[in-house]
Amino acid sequence: MNKEYLYTEIANGIASQIRNGILKSGDKLPSVRKLCKEHQISMNTAKRVFLELESQSLVDSKPQSGYFVSNILSVELPLPEVSKPSLIANNEEPNELINKVYENIGKKEVTLFSIGIPSGDLLPQAKLKKEIINATRTLKEGGTEYEEIQGNLKLRRMISMRSLQWGGNFHENDLVTTNGGMNALSFCLMALGKPGDTIAIESPCYPGILQLANGLGLKVLELPTHPTTGIEIDALKKVIPKIDLCLLIPNYNAPLGSCMPDENKKEVVKILSENGIPLIEDDVYGDLYFGSDRPKCCKSFDKEGNVLYCSSISKTLAPGYRVGWIAPGKYKDKILKLKFLHSTSSISIVNEAVANFLKSGKYEKHLQQMRKSLQNNYQNYVQTIAEAFPQGTKTSRPQGGLSLWVEFDKNIKTTQLYDLAIKENISIAPGRMFTLQDQFENCMRLCIGLPWSEETQAKLKQLGNLAKRV
Amino acid sequence: MNKEYLYTEIANGIASQIRNGILKSGDKLPSVRKLCKEHQISMNTAKRVFLELESQSLVDSKPQSGYFVSNILSVELPLPEVSKPSLIANNEEPNELINKVYENIGKKEVTLFSIGIPSGDLLPQAKLKKEIINATRTLKEGGTEYEEIQGNLKLRRMISMRSLQWGGNFHENDLVTTNGGMNALSFCLMALGKPGDTIAIESPCYPGILQLANGLGLKVLELPTHPTTGIEIDALKKVIPKIDLCLLIPNYNAPLGSCMPDENKKEVVKILSENGIPLIEDDVYGDLYFGSDRPKCCKSFDKEGNVLYCSSISKTLAPGYRVGWIAPGKYKDKILKLKFLHSTSSISIVNEAVANFLKSGKYEKHLQQMRKSLQNNYQNYVQTIAEAFPQGTKTSRPQGGLSLWVEFDKNIKTTQLYDLAIKENISIAPGRMFTLQDQFENCMRLCIGLPWSEETQAKLKQLGNLAKRV
Repeated sequence: MNKEYLYTEIANGIASQIRNGILKSGDKLPSVRKLCKEHQISMNTAKRVFLELESQSLVDSKPQSGYFVSNILSVELPLPEVSKPSLIANNEEPNELINKVYENIGKKEVTLFSIGIPSGDLLPQAKLKKEIINATRTLKEGGTEYEEIQGNLKLRRMISMRSLQWGGNFHENDLVTTNGGMNALSFCLMALGKPGDTIAIESPCYPGILQLANGLGLKVLELPTHPTTGIEIDALKKVIPKIDLCLLIPNYNAPLGSCMPDENKKEVVKILSENGIPLIEDDVYGDLYFGSDRPKCCKSFDKEGNVLYCSSISKTLAPGYRVGWIAPGKYKDKILKLKFLHSTSSISIVNEAVANFLKSGKYEKHLQQMRKSLQNNYQNYVQTIAEAFPQGTKTSRPQGGLSLWVEFDKNIKTTQLYDLAIKENISIAPGRMFTLQDQFENCMRLCIGLPWSEETQAKLKQLGNLAKRV
Repeated sequence: MNKEYLYTEIANGIASQIRNGILKSGDKLPSVRKLCKEHQISMNTAKRVFLELESQSLVDSKPQSGYFVSNILSVELPLPEVSKPSLIANNEEPNELINKVYENIGKKEVTLFSIGIPSGDLLPQAKLKKEIINATRTLKEGGTEYEEIQGNLKLRRMISMRSLQWGGNFHENDLVTTNGGMNALSFCLMALGKPGDTIAIESPCYPGILQLANGLGLKVLELPTHPTTGIEIDALKKVIPKIDLCLLIPNYNAPLGSCMPDENKKEVVKILSENGIPLIEDDVYGDLYFGSDRPKCCKSFDKEGNVLYCSSISKTLAPGYRVGWIAPGKYKDKILKLKFLHSTSSISIVNEAVANFLKSGKYEKHLQQMRKSLQNNYQNYVQTIAEAFPQGTKTSRPQGGLSLWVEFDKNIKTTQLYDLAIKENISIAPGRMFTLQDQFENCMRLCIGLPWSEETQAKLKQLGNLAKRV
């Protein structure tokens, strides 16, 4: 064979093994020396094999360690259906089911596929401890005094700087800190929603949002949502006359994992702005992209201050710190007043610690690692589901975030699967939790933020076997 | 003279000097030796003089230092009038004035007689820093994970134990932690108040409560309030048919400093219970008593779970930590759900730090010191007001807490005094902030939580001189 093409042939062979899932992400490839021996080729040719694979983003080189299969998806299952909720506002939440699922959160013996938070193993806990200690030194009065109502200035500055990455372009004065992401959403809904108002959301939707809206007396209108591209714009257009507010998680939303394309974001912002309907944007998963670029936020297309951008570090750094923020646009005064009246001020110590952590550059490094772990988890989940779950199982294809949406055949009810699984100390989030309507009964959300291990894999297989029995 | 009575005569002489304010609290008395010499008496007789004064609580002995005048009030001014608000529900808050006063909070050059928080000098900041560092060690995962929704168990246990001091007798399961005291009140009001409902409160009342109620669409009914004994029970009885809720600060309330006698507390709880009207009790000042015993709380007379007891450490330890709690009685489920939806969980680090501080016994020691300082401040304030304020000035006689209520002659408007004083970097809280009605325009609240110094005294005198010019 022509020497010129020998390296491509060998590279293609390895590539197809990777694409077929025989070689899995993270697997170590043979060394250059070993490849020479195996294929009777020169060192130069062997090196060109790896360069070719690297150029296709199939392998990564690690200094002093060799070549490893990179995080590319080797297996894909069919996509779940686009949701088809009826476009009528509802206000009855699936309380009992939600409580049942949340009941198990604290139990250490239970494998929690049900919750949407990253496992402690994915978080830089030791570094954060040091930042807490550091914060008691960098803070005036050690953080015992009230901080400015708008929030820690250093943190607001760091968020402004980071916002350039995704077209946010916030000024430090545009931001108000909150006690975590739910607190941010709560203030936005309290500022803008009156009892009886209707709010449009994705379907399926994070249960906390359903319950929060309900608790404030808002009616909820669920929009058809595509598992990859998010809400259907035509449906939004149709319901415009019926709605007063809109709340979306445009990037890697929980539980579906969809991410709205930029042009959709732009159009949604335009439609809502033209109709004077405020958009509350929850971007807590935006930093957890698997690809090379962070997705933009709707806020980056907002020229009129009509978008209230909410985010936090609860999904990326430390859920227990409760550090979140809002860029509330033209509603800033309302948000500031609500914050002052309902919580006086944020907790200085944790906000200062996070600000210092961001400033040190450690956050970006941590995110890089965390994204790789999550992408890897995602692939391992899908691989295992393909192997062990019932025929016909579909999954979403999140390009980031913490959620994988699983759709079974119509006759598999996930509330029944929940009951079976919890007896074996496995907790899942049945699809019915994520809607006020009768849908998603054959669906569930799996958290991909658990550390991937033989045990996790075994539990996931066990879940697949249980699903076959339902 | 009979030796037997010589010591009483000398003791009476000193006592009258103390009572007349010639000897002031904190002043050092002559030594035993000096007293012998001055009065030509034996060491034993001299010692009996001091024992007599000690038994009357007029002096304290300090080991190796001698005897000092203890903290008893040497000067008293007349009491302000009982408030006479009209018993009609209102919903317009004095927004502009409140904003104007709060605007100056962050300015270091301003002497803040206006705000109701203790100065950092009164707080054990170094010890708390250590507890924060300690908390990163004693907490699972260093506090990065969500804590139990109900809140840190160790903290709830410590609060339960402390509650025995004032007849609270809480069980750890009766308590839900919150992000500070205002957050506690906010959850109670959100849990129990519907827009259009009427809430009865003290008059004058803390402006945050007026604004919070207003923001939630509640109408506010102000009750006549005695500067010493709190709300007038007869007035409460009269308005029972008109009200849906009641919120009181029974112990050393802000801004008046009144403390309801036990029998009043008992009766209020009974009346409200019988009429199915929930009582929200804010007890943030209860630990700051000047006397020998902590006053009881209304909750201690509550047999039906109708009282929602709220408190925090913001007035006694660390405002910036935002650590508060509710004992919500029969409304616990509602409060837990609100907490979960609006803030997910409390911030572990600060709650753990406070729990450890309480457990170490340092809190009780700190409170002892802080109470002495505040009582001393109170006496110094009244002394200075008596000397430097216009004739006819009246003050409340708080037996604890952080607030002193000052009533001028009718023609002195404190909003005008505010404008004059702020130009000289002195901030006060005009009486009109504390009501939705046209009253208290000749009143103001002074915070006694500033460190007493020559500068504080000078500023207070300057304020008196300005008042003379209004």
